[in-house]
Amino acid sequence: MSAPRHPPGSRPLPLAPGPEFDLVRRFLGRVDTGAGVLVGPGDDCAVVDAGALALSTDMSIEGVHFRREWLEPEEIGWRAAAAALSDLAAVAARPLGILVSLAIPARDAGPFAERLMAGSREAVADAGGTLLGGDLTGSPGPVVLDVTVVGRVEEPVLRSGATAGEEVWVTGQLGGSRAFVEAMLSGAKPARRARERYARPRPRTREAVWLAERGLCSSMVDLSDGLAGDAGHLAAGSGVAIVLEEERVPVHPAADRALALSGGEDYELCFTSAAGALRPFTAEFASRFRVDLTRVGTVEPGAGVWIVAADGSRSAAGAGGWQHFGGAA
Amino acid sequence: MSAPRHPPGSRPLPLAPGPEFDLVRRFLGRVDTGAGVLVGPGDDCAVVDAGALALSTDMSIEGVHFRREWLEPEEIGWRAAAAALSDLAAVAARPLGILVSLAIPARDAGPFAERLMAGSREAVADAGGTLLGGDLTGSPGPVVLDVTVVGRVEEPVLRSGATAGEEVWVTGQLGGSRAFVEAMLSGAKPARRARERYARPRPRTREAVWLAERGLCSSMVDLSDGLAGDAGHLAAGSGVAIVLEEERVPVHPAADRALALSGGEDYELCFTSAAGALRPFTAEFASRFRVDLTRVGTVEPGAGVWIVAADGSRSAAGAGGWQHFGGAA
Repeated sequence: MSAPRHPPGSRPLPLAPGPEFDLVRRFLGRVDTGAGVLVGPGDDCAVVDAGALALSTDMSIEGVHFRREWLEPEEIGWRAAAAALSDLAAVAARPLGILVSLAIPARDAGPFAERLMAGSREAVADAGGTLLGGDLTGSPGPVVLDVTVVGRVEEPVLRSGATAGEEVWVTGQLGGSRAFVEAMLSGAKPARRARERYARPRPRTREAVWLAERGLCSSMVDLSDGLAGDAGHLAAGSGVAIVLEEERVPVHPAADRALALSGGEDYELCFTSAAGALRPFTAEFASRFRVDLTRVGTVEPGAGVWIVAADGSRSAAGAGGWQHFGGAA
Repeated sequence: MSAPRHPPGSRPLPLAPGPEFDLVRRFLGRVDTGAGVLVGPGDDCAVVDAGALALSTDMSIEGVHFRREWLEPEEIGWRAAAAALSDLAAVAARPLGILVSLAIPARDAGPFAERLMAGSREAVADAGGTLLGGDLTGSPGPVVLDVTVVGRVEEPVLRSGATAGEEVWVTGQLGGSRAFVEAMLSGAKPARRARERYARPRPRTREAVWLAERGLCSSMVDLSDGLAGDAGHLAAGSGVAIVLEEERVPVHPAADRALALSGGEDYELCFTSAAGALRPFTAEFASRFRVDLTRVGTVEPGAGVWIVAADGSRSAAGAGGWQHFGGAA
């Protein structure tokens, strides 16, 4: 099959009657069978037309990844979708769509759930994709969202492509999201810009595609667990050492240097690039995307992640970042 | 890109050190970058090469979809994957793989989680696919599994293709899975065959592809919520009435007629076929797949699902099936 079964903007396929399907109908809105989406939500599967597709999934659980009292329902949905879309950015894939599995207590099966799903739809639309489907179920306790992302990619930028002598770069400013969490946990009033970073992170999907199309990233990862920790994936995947210069790390105005190195959930990109290759493009990138590019270190022979302090002393970053079973390093 | 980045049977891409990644490493086993899988687990995304892809997701929650004390960990993992794979069968897609998001309490982040994931891997391998990726996170309470399925499909069989005058068919025997649940809830000893249907359902992926290749199904749905309820999706999707003849419904030996009509989680197929078209193929189908095909009704002009009793009386099936917010009809 090569043409959409229902035209863009049409209503979803009718579902059987019933309160669960009533709620699903409210989730869907208009079907966007855009480029590549042959069958949208409403059947047993969505069907997409694609060459090479990138796929990933990311689960968010109330009490683990978010607290309901810190966020509007739309922000919970946005944040979960953005975290998953960030994995597409990390391989330089163009978002096609998302599938959202949602488990909610029965009392939330109304406006709360609808607003949450509206937030997820908004996040994927902002990234150029659409809602492809999902699952809705009751939860005996926490709200659980699992977002699967699907994106087109011809030449994925993997974690394994870094070589010694290259530069290490990051997008944006780091630590803002964690600064919000620290403020909330300590009872302080969080900075508005820190809250925005936490509640509405913007996955760098367009930025990643732009960089990859110009051959400017040899390996890449998104920053979900913190720079020191996630850089470890590039080191392990490529069989190299990643050396980060502490003084170079771009610190979010609401954060400090320690948070910028270890704080998670910024959803910026960390990537490697041939020495000198990126410099001619940084001004154009910054003006196009209104996001800075900063060189934060170098790739060296060896293994692991190393932090070079202002005085030139070098220390191992350890396991680094957030771990669900073992806590933060 | 057109060739796998790592050859079939190779180890997954190295992950950074840490207890969470240790557990993930134990989940993966050998990478099966089989046909169409260009990048397996271990990077930010899996990458698959495909024409048209079917995608769906299905969430299973402890206390809602399963009880830990009823099942071995491998069965929990198998069952969740089988339920999701059944959605591929329902559009006649060939399984490429699954992504599994798993949330578990910290105390289960060992053999329990490994055995559960082994069950999911086994189920997808049995259906001809592979584990493509997933997410692992802590849970403050219940075990949560969300399985996203990815399959190849050229001509998906949708819910919207039924027309008046066609026949309605089902695969297998119905009600066995629910018979197990009823027995467990009432404290009776469940029949072995009922337990097998509940604990290790086999999604009808190969059967569906075989039928679709021969043009024998005009619309199709899998039976996750019960025949009467799921037939409602064909009725609603196609704008027709589905008329089920109660006496024809194939009843699992451990079940009764009421369970066969309303009991969910059998993961058999219900589909429509042109009058007389399927009959010449039923013997070959039964001998090839060791699964029966049974004509259970007809498609008529109108709407909704109707049950014809032995005395010829006709009653509306109602909303039917299991609903998470509103209970069983």
